Amino acid sequence: MPKIMMNSIENFEQHVNAAFVAKAEALKPELIRKTIRPLRTVRLAEDRGLYQAEVQEDIRQEADGTLSLKPRLRKGNSVIYDFGDHCVGYVTLKLSSAGSPPDAPAYFRLKFGEMPYEIGLDSESYDGSISSSWIQEEVLHVDVLPAEVHLPRRYAFRYMEVLVKDTSPKYDLVIEDVSCETVTSADRDRLLPLPEGTDPALVLLDKVGVKTLEDCMQDVFEDGPKRDRRLWIGDLRLQAQVNYLTFRNYDLVKRCLYLFAGLLQNEDHVGACLFTEPKLQIDDTSMYDYGLFFTSILLDYYEASKDLGTLKELAPVAYHQEELGLEQTDEDGVYLNDGRNWCFIDWNHELDKQASGQGVLIYTLKQAKKIAEILGDREKAEELAGSIEKCTEGAIRKLWDPEKRFFVSGPTKQISYASQIWMILAGAVEQETAKDILLRLLRDGNEYTMITPYIHHHFVAALIQSGLKAEALSYMKAYWGQMIADGADTYFEAYDPKNRSVSPYGSLIINSFCHAWSCGPAYFIRKYYI
Amino acid sequence: MPKIMMNSIENFEQHVNAAFVAKAEALKPELIRKTIRPLRTVRLAEDRGLYQAEVQEDIRQEADGTLSLKPRLRKGNSVIYDFGDHCVGYVTLKLSSAGSPPDAPAYFRLKFGEMPYEIGLDSESYDGSISSSWIQEEVLHVDVLPAEVHLPRRYAFRYMEVLVKDTSPKYDLVIEDVSCETVTSADRDRLLPLPEGTDPALVLLDKVGVKTLEDCMQDVFEDGPKRDRRLWIGDLRLQAQVNYLTFRNYDLVKRCLYLFAGLLQNEDHVGACLFTEPKLQIDDTSMYDYGLFFTSILLDYYEASKDLGTLKELAPVAYHQEELGLEQTDEDGVYLNDGRNWCFIDWNHELDKQASGQGVLIYTLKQAKKIAEILGDREKAEELAGSIEKCTEGAIRKLWDPEKRFFVSGPTKQISYASQIWMILAGAVEQETAKDILLRLLRDGNEYTMITPYIHHHFVAALIQSGLKAEALSYMKAYWGQMIADGADTYFEAYDPKNRSVSPYGSLIINSFCHAWSCGPAYFIRKYYI
Repeated sequence: MPKIMMNSIENFEQHVNAAFVAKAEALKPELIRKTIRPLRTVRLAEDRGLYQAEVQEDIRQEADGTLSLKPRLRKGNSVIYDFGDHCVGYVTLKLSSAGSPPDAPAYFRLKFGEMPYEIGLDSESYDGSISSSWIQEEVLHVDVLPAEVHLPRRYAFRYMEVLVKDTSPKYDLVIEDVSCETVTSADRDRLLPLPEGTDPALVLLDKVGVKTLEDCMQDVFEDGPKRDRRLWIGDLRLQAQVNYLTFRNYDLVKRCLYLFAGLLQNEDHVGACLFTEPKLQIDDTSMYDYGLFFTSILLDYYEASKDLGTLKELAPVAYHQEELGLEQTDEDGVYLNDGRNWCFIDWNHELDKQASGQGVLIYTLKQAKKIAEILGDREKAEELAGSIEKCTEGAIRKLWDPEKRFFVSGPTKQISYASQIWMILAGAVEQETAKDILLRLLRDGNEYTMITPYIHHHFVAALIQSGLKAEALSYMKAYWGQMIADGADTYFEAYDPKNRSVSPYGSLIINSFCHAWSCGPAYFIRKYYI
Repeated sequence: MPKIMMNSIENFEQHVNAAFVAKAEALKPELIRKTIRPLRTVRLAEDRGLYQAEVQEDIRQEADGTLSLKPRLRKGNSVIYDFGDHCVGYVTLKLSSAGSPPDAPAYFRLKFGEMPYEIGLDSESYDGSISSSWIQEEVLHVDVLPAEVHLPRRYAFRYMEVLVKDTSPKYDLVIEDVSCETVTSADRDRLLPLPEGTDPALVLLDKVGVKTLEDCMQDVFEDGPKRDRRLWIGDLRLQAQVNYLTFRNYDLVKRCLYLFAGLLQNEDHVGACLFTEPKLQIDDTSMYDYGLFFTSILLDYYEASKDLGTLKELAPVAYHQEELGLEQTDEDGVYLNDGRNWCFIDWNHELDKQASGQGVLIYTLKQAKKIAEILGDREKAEELAGSIEKCTEGAIRKLWDPEKRFFVSGPTKQISYASQIWMILAGAVEQETAKDILLRLLRDGNEYTMITPYIHHHFVAALIQSGLKAEALSYMKAYWGQMIADGADTYFEAYDPKNRSVSPYGSLIINSFCHAWSCGPAYFIRKYYI
């Protein structure tokens, strides 16, 4: 999830509920570890302006565990390993030398890429909007050879380049072995299989989504294992949905819910993002839509797990988020979008977020009402019903353009995908109207384009909810399917099939190519298409 | 010591004497550790084309151990710490952050410099003849802050730069503490003090020499703690001489003697250089003069320690080196210098080494004879006396030019400092002749200049031996004293007062500024001037 343009709260406070945090910590998962080795080496080639990996040499693993290829490198030489699939974990290199005894340190650079682009692009040239420290690159000196080098940092990658910057004229560096100990809290033994005979196109779309989720499931649900490696609530909501139909790790969702509920911001607002290291700590970023999604995640969790105790204990936190959301509406219950905090929706800086924010508010108010009903809290349910009615009526009055038959947003009456999507998901219009809106969008497009798979996900959800299941499927196949055709082992943070080098941050080198909010196809397929 | 242009032995063998190696290993020293912290920060300024350090801010160490300065750095910011003196050891950084919780790794570069030049010069621009892997620079990513970063490699430095390559717009990197755990096997408690009232100029010359030796005394006598960090026999000889008059660590010399005697090369030749990691291993570099110096070191060791057992046990190894040396002479006992192995003498590639190699042979033959006499081995002593006579007469006949009254070397009859120095040290001419040669050299100079303090050392030794004690002292004051005036905390590997940026390898950035073969002033002062 995002990292820039977000409001940091002034005079930031963290309100800790120690009991909640303790519950979360008790649910800390044991990570599942597996050692894997590269399958081949590759060389980079350019195709339509982007680097692609071409097979150079296959690598066998011999009976004694050694690799059939042991590259011997001198100054300026490099090798690119291909591990065959996306990995998240800790890399070990076994190095030796050939020639005279090494009379100078071995000095080499490692570059890790989820995609070949990250190997091909020059890190030094990056001048984007977020920190270059996310570029997965290390420069190492090894004083004594042979050596087993255990890299202490976790990397997300499929490709790993070793470039020798120097040895000495007297010896070459030999890479005896490379391995990655992958980590995840997703248990493949619990993964629900797809039925026999499922359409292979769906099997593939599902597989990549499942892999994306798997690699983002760590100590918490991370947004992306390359970047930012943190628990973001927007990602969590979609991850949890896929998780219920795949790995079914209910405890990990429960843990994340208790973390967000146990580490609140000023006004007891649920934060957007949470750090687990060096200590549990809510970030000082406050987001309108993300705070409200706590309610969604809680209800989804209950519906998947039937864990009534958690629902009961955390419902007050959810209700409070709705109250905070309503505080940012006008006398007609319409979202002010006055910059008090940031409404994300999508990585489109031109987007006016009023209507989509309103949609998220109504959407989550309805979920809060459902929670109240489940818990038998009639008073709360009625109160919420009142808010839903007010907000919906207000939205129709102020944000619906009956001539254009589109929702409009903000002072410029902007018409965007996002506004339609969220007002439809909020159920603010009848299904026939929703269908009409979406078909016109599909037919005519819209200048306020959808940037991230996150908003594409909600577009698919809106199509399905509006009875356009076939359109949703072909849309999903076209968008996520093209991502796979473009080389995705896991779904990307940002993707535009018309502009394959799109980045919200200025360069592909910094993009996350395994990003939680993109894993939705596995959810849609398993829920609606099998 | 050197690293290039050296012959590597073909079909290299290592002849191990396990008993000798075991004796050496039993003498492995316990390193003395001391934690030190920077005294100030500095900025770089240029003076006569070289970077100099100017004080920026003093740093106090508070009563609670914290530093009075805690630099707060963002992208592009840097700080240069000055530890106040040369250090060899392991660095720890205590880092924290200021601002929002760190939402991206801290990404920074560390540069270590014995001299400010190494901080100022761009590492990437280095294109010299030896490995750039010796440049003391690291690039680090720290994922979680606060953090205590223990750098695993040993550095030799006084200056340490921290340059922040990136954090994120949300936080700054704070350096809470920096420290270095220095290591040495030199025990300051055993250091012989200079007499009260010693000339302050000599006190200073001695102090820098002692510090140079101290920082090179590790697990073995190293040539330089920055580079190559190894046991070289040419350095060992001079280090041992200073050691006997300062730290008096006889065991460390004994250890090195047994290592060289226990790990012989083809033909049981003593190697030039020895690795202690990953395992004890003689290098495949074979050097004519260095092999012969085993004899010198053994005799010097006996004379300082009176350890007759070691002398007796290792004498055969020394005698054998002399035999191997003699094998490379012609029928008149004159060194062939036919490239069978390499005669070092000095880092002057124009230098013809025949006469100086001949000098080293006679010099060490005389020491071997002395060993035989001490051990009462009359037969060996007589045999060696015969060789000495033959080699000396041969040298006078073939290498002495009675008209020019200089020793000449090789087919071009080259006249150099080095040839005169070593033939004089060999005692091949009477003192009056030696004096005449040296005074003419002092007066007229010579085109084959002396490059390293190693050959300057032998020039001083030749002056003293020839009764030119005052000239030796003023030469020493001029050469090593100017090095101190130019900022030396320890004596350099290479130095030319007329060309301060001299490097045998193409750039000052790779030079070693604390180099064992330069520590001689402490020996000369303590032996001849107090």
